[in-house]
Amino acid sequence: MKLCRYGEFGAERPAIFDEQGALRDLSGYVSDITPAHLSASELEKLSKIRLSELPLVPGNPRIGAPVSGISKFIAIGLNYRDHAEEAGMAIPTEPIIFMKSTTSIGGPNDDIVVPPHSTKLDWELELGVVIGKKAQYISEEEALDYVAGYCVVNDVSERSFQLQSSQWDKGKGCDTFGPIGPWLVTKDEVPDPQNLNMWLDVNGERRQGGNSRTMIFTVKELVAYCSRYMTLLPGDVITTGTPPGVGMGMKPEPTYLNKGDVVTLWIEGLGTQKQLIVERQV
Amino acid sequence: MKLCRYGEFGAERPAIFDEQGALRDLSGYVSDITPAHLSASELEKLSKIRLSELPLVPGNPRIGAPVSGISKFIAIGLNYRDHAEEAGMAIPTEPIIFMKSTTSIGGPNDDIVVPPHSTKLDWELELGVVIGKKAQYISEEEALDYVAGYCVVNDVSERSFQLQSSQWDKGKGCDTFGPIGPWLVTKDEVPDPQNLNMWLDVNGERRQGGNSRTMIFTVKELVAYCSRYMTLLPGDVITTGTPPGVGMGMKPEPTYLNKGDVVTLWIEGLGTQKQLIVERQV
Repeated sequence: MKLCRYGEFGAERPAIFDEQGALRDLSGYVSDITPAHLSASELEKLSKIRLSELPLVPGNPRIGAPVSGISKFIAIGLNYRDHAEEAGMAIPTEPIIFMKSTTSIGGPNDDIVVPPHSTKLDWELELGVVIGKKAQYISEEEALDYVAGYCVVNDVSERSFQLQSSQWDKGKGCDTFGPIGPWLVTKDEVPDPQNLNMWLDVNGERRQGGNSRTMIFTVKELVAYCSRYMTLLPGDVITTGTPPGVGMGMKPEPTYLNKGDVVTLWIEGLGTQKQLIVERQV
Repeated sequence: MKLCRYGEFGAERPAIFDEQGALRDLSGYVSDITPAHLSASELEKLSKIRLSELPLVPGNPRIGAPVSGISKFIAIGLNYRDHAEEAGMAIPTEPIIFMKSTTSIGGPNDDIVVPPHSTKLDWELELGVVIGKKAQYISEEEALDYVAGYCVVNDVSERSFQLQSSQWDKGKGCDTFGPIGPWLVTKDEVPDPQNLNMWLDVNGERRQGGNSRTMIFTVKELVAYCSRYMTLLPGDVITTGTPPGVGMGMKPEPTYLNKGDVVTLWIEGLGTQKQLIVERQV
């Protein structure tokens, strides 16, 4: 299934994206897609709905993040070998965990707002993993049992904020810095999360291209690893690091995002995001 | 007011700690103390209740964190000059922001569980600030208008996890690493948050002692600063850094917490915490 949520920010309604590419309203079955709907049994119930009987959603509504009430937005740093090299950082020997604020979360096509004091706004195309079941000290072998599905994430980063102190969180958590979606694609539709092509364009020019097979730590390794340091709850999102091609690493010199730029992201089977860079309206 | 919550983890009931030191049940007025109850108008409603008419809570129940549904647990690093020195770190020129997981949050007297792979479990006595009103890009002058009150926080830290990579969050967010409370003391009872005595004992021996006047960045500076990097929501907690005397800084050599140790924390007007260090029950 491709679960999603549509409507105004904070008042989204649940929907399913069907095989013909149409959005069908799910609110006859559930009032929202919340962490409680991500268990295997709840997802199975939804999977039995005959999509052709669901009402089509008219028009072209805003799409929100595919799950409401995400309680933790965990991020992994430098998880693609080539990206660590372009960032001039050592290849990690263990996953680097940091956290994005949950207030950074937005829909896949929402505008990205440049903070007023920003000078180095950058993009990071990432595979997001959505937890379906409470996980504590789980093994790698069982880790995928705790995953509900996958999504596209743009780990938007302000490099001057991120690198001003030793701690990155400050440059990762501004409002609009966490577009998620368009869909939560349930794991049955993603047979191998380590073989997904992906790309990111800025103004139609390819900036990032890669495949999740070049991750240093795989999805199952990351889920198991994180579960040893914090309890993972249903709805928690782990965004798994970015392949090469961020603005900070561009040659001959870094290139950052400016007002009016358009960022487009795609991951195989998980859909497309498209964001316009805008100034803050005060 | 000294607002608090009592009862089993996840099923706490609201209460007020009265001037005679008795706990009085608030559930006739509100079903819980949530972020929505922290606005000035809601707090004013609660302040008008005649405490002597509230039922006394019998026995000696567990105390929970004083607010449910805390969405962000923001932490400030190295915010006391002497602590930065004992940690061998440069004095920050801007606040260092990192994040504790919300799953680390617990009650003030809950056991602290040693993670199975832990070797350097440490304490950090801190003044916690609870946000009462949504804050975005606010000024220092108005920052305290956005504060609901204050509480004691133990920013429990596993130093080997914290310092294994450049990013501290991994050593800060384990389950039970965030005792908060016993009370949310509303700001009218804390006329000057920059003049609060505080101490922390381990097994009855004084380890930390200080006063919030030696903070590098004050509460109002921190609230305003954080609001420039992420929207602060009601119920968000900012824990403001620790004075000297953590285990990592002890001479002649670092001393960490072990099973059976008891940590006691106190901040003037904000109450006492007491935690037993236990091993994980599997």
